[in-house]
Amino acid sequence: MTLLPETVYADLWTIRQKNPLVHNITNYVVMNNTANALLAIGASPVMAHAQEEVAEMTTIAAALVINIGTLSRPWIRAMHTAAAAAKETGIPIVLDPVGAGATLFRTDSARDLLTTAAPSVIRGNASEIMALARANGSTKGVDASSGAKDALTCARDLNQTYGSAVCVTGETDYILSGDSMLEVTNGHAMMPRVTGLGCTASALCGAFAAVNADPGKAAAHALTVMGIAGEMAAEAAPGPGSLQMHLIDALYRMSESDISTRMKP
Amino acid sequence: MTLLPETVYADLWTIRQKNPLVHNITNYVVMNNTANALLAIGASPVMAHAQEEVAEMTTIAAALVINIGTLSRPWIRAMHTAAAAAKETGIPIVLDPVGAGATLFRTDSARDLLTTAAPSVIRGNASEIMALARANGSTKGVDASSGAKDALTCARDLNQTYGSAVCVTGETDYILSGDSMLEVTNGHAMMPRVTGLGCTASALCGAFAAVNADPGKAAAHALTVMGIAGEMAAEAAPGPGSLQMHLIDALYRMSESDISTRMKP
Amino acid sequence: MTLLPETVYADLWTIRQKNPLVHNITNYVVMNNTANALLAIGASPVMAHAQEEVAEMTTIAAALVINIGTLSRPWIRAMHTAAAAAKETGIPIVLDPVGAGATLFRTDSARDLLTTAAPSVIRGNASEIMALARANGSTKGVDASSGAKDALTCARDLNQTYGSAVCVTGETDYILSGDSMLEVTNGHAMMPRVTGLGCTASALCGAFAAVNADPGKAAAHALTVMGIAGEMAAEAAPGPGSLQMHLIDALYRMSESDISTRMKP
Repeated sequence: MTLLPETVYADLWTIRQKNPLVHNITNYVVMNNTANALLAIGASPVMAHAQEEVAEMTTIAAALVINIGTLSRPWIRAMHTAAAAAKETGIPIVLDPVGAGATLFRTDSARDLLTTAAPSVIRGNASEIMALARANGSTKGVDASSGAKDALTCARDLNQTYGSAVCVTGETDYILSGDSMLEVTNGHAMMPRVTGLGCTASALCGAFAAVNADPGKAAAHALTVMGIAGEMAAEAAPGPGSLQMHLIDALYRMSESDISTRMKP
Repeated sequence: MTLLPETVYADLWTIRQKNPLVHNITNYVVMNNTANALLAIGASPVMAHAQEEVAEMTTIAAALVINIGTLSRPWIRAMHTAAAAAKETGIPIVLDPVGAGATLFRTDSARDLLTTAAPSVIRGNASEIMALARANGSTKGVDASSGAKDALTCARDLNQTYGSAVCVTGETDYILSGDSMLEVTNGHAMMPRVTGLGCTASALCGAFAAVNADPGKAAAHALTVMGIAGEMAAEAAPGPGSLQMHLIDALYRMSESDISTRMKP
Repeated sequence: MTLLPETVYADLWTIRQKNPLVHNITNYVVMNNTANALLAIGASPVMAHAQEEVAEMTTIAAALVINIGTLSRPWIRAMHTAAAAAKETGIPIVLDPVGAGATLFRTDSARDLLTTAAPSVIRGNASEIMALARANGSTKGVDASSGAKDALTCARDLNQTYGSAVCVTGETDYILSGDSMLEVTNGHAMMPRVTGLGCTASALCGAFAAVNADPGKAAAHALTVMGIAGEMAAEAAPGPGSLQMHLIDALYRMSESDISTRMKP
């Protein structure tokens, strides 16, 4: 299965037309940039984390993005409430297990969220995806030898257990969904020097999943747009401060030809 | 009643001379930009939300800005404590009812804050002002036909009930206060694509209310400065990422002639 | 004792090579910029504040930075837990007593943290350092006459009581440690118009303390790099919005010759 520029752009165009409301329960570090990235592609972001309102907010949202980057107990409870409501409503859920593997608290929290409501999309870096797969036992044989299992195997296991499209992002992004694996090679080496661009990518996955019923394709389209925006931004950016700013501009200005010119076969 | 460039600039000049301390209890998404906007116009921002310190902080502040964008119960309690202390101290209060109408939790929280201490200024978009007016019953006839009542009527009702200057911001900003209605038409179409510029406008209302005893004029001056900064920024900004940055620079650099040249009669 | 460009650069180089993990428990306003500044100099930031994970996070971190800018009780508890764990692990702790003196809650919270675990570095402006010294009684004679004691005396007292290198930052930065006092005069007058650059400086102190066992020198090197980055940024910045962006770029791009050219003897 391959990605086509015209289908990537078709989703972006739909987002720009429909302005889907994306409900984010995300970390403090990235809230501003996440909201700005969603606005830049044409989506409508809302951030809300109170137990009292997350379920109601989910009923008017077109997607729910849960990001565990700065967790605490009240936020975890709200994430479960929102996830359950989103599952009931039938809107797509994106889970970003930030820092899974760094502390037991994060690993366990991410795993528990999988159980409450299987996400449409899980997006993390290799170590996060591996930590998540091992934590929930979906990777068979969690023992000394499990070190040999790589992130793609873990992603496959998570996909099989939960049905989620699983994105392992890095220099190349891999999106596993059912029998297919998509690869996105767009992006720029300076991107990891800006905080939270992975979180931004997850939020974009939410916007794309709001307009594309195939979570694997939605995620691959989102990651393509993110990578291309990073490339466009890097051309004008002497450092990560300006990269961050230009990336928002690039998301806003991206044309169909930007996509077709820059997508790699 | 009309706005004059020289009185707008006089307030800005006073803020730059006196550096009023503006106490913000605001949402996570915009805290950084709010603080930077206040610093850029010459005010001194402080963010504090703990029940244990908000009243004390209010005693050294020249204005209090309450923004309900990312609520939770402990923050609501602190908002009430701070509002009561501000009322006692006699400093102006600005209320930004972010998302009122989107969830019952937000609508009720905003309405309850009105009861604790009538704000000097309420600033919201049309739907927020309408939700707030309907929630507290100050708009007579909350029934099916109330859909016909528009935001300006709701703003008038809130003004009559609470004495607050009420700003309905959008392509044109309307500021209702007593028998007068001021209009601000400065601004740029790209501004809504930056998250939290409405919140920034509310924070500027706080700074202007700290130096101008007439809340309606203070708010209209703040919204004029905000709109002009947006226009100045847009001239250099290919997208919302750079708009946000240039807007802060414009607030910092705005001269009397920038105001007189750009204000519309 | 004087500072040498080559030792400043040596620390920066080591940070870029080793990417030390800096655990921040900091305020909402500055989290994004703090993370970006740490990434820009080559460190790896992590933000985590939950009681359940801060101790574990500290075990994988190379430094802990505690900043009390937007306090609440649960965060204070986590700060104590993290500080105790950092002391046990033996990693350096940096304390930024934001707003000490503004409210009793902040002053007391900062003082209590000193008792839990003496920091390697304390960084504040003059009024914060004075408030902190007076609050914990390390400044003898907390009475009417104490107004005559200046910030450097207070810094000296804190240093003698806790062994911390104490930085009093302003137009000139003073770093007191043992019998030595270092001065850093780099910087730019527009820097205080960007929110949280003091917080950024504290975070950089954490990164430098992670690679330099002498806290006083680490802090002086960090403040030098910060001041030089501010100067480099100001050359391209018409206002504080662009200053903030260019500062991140300058941290990323700073060369040995940038340091040797700009350091003042």
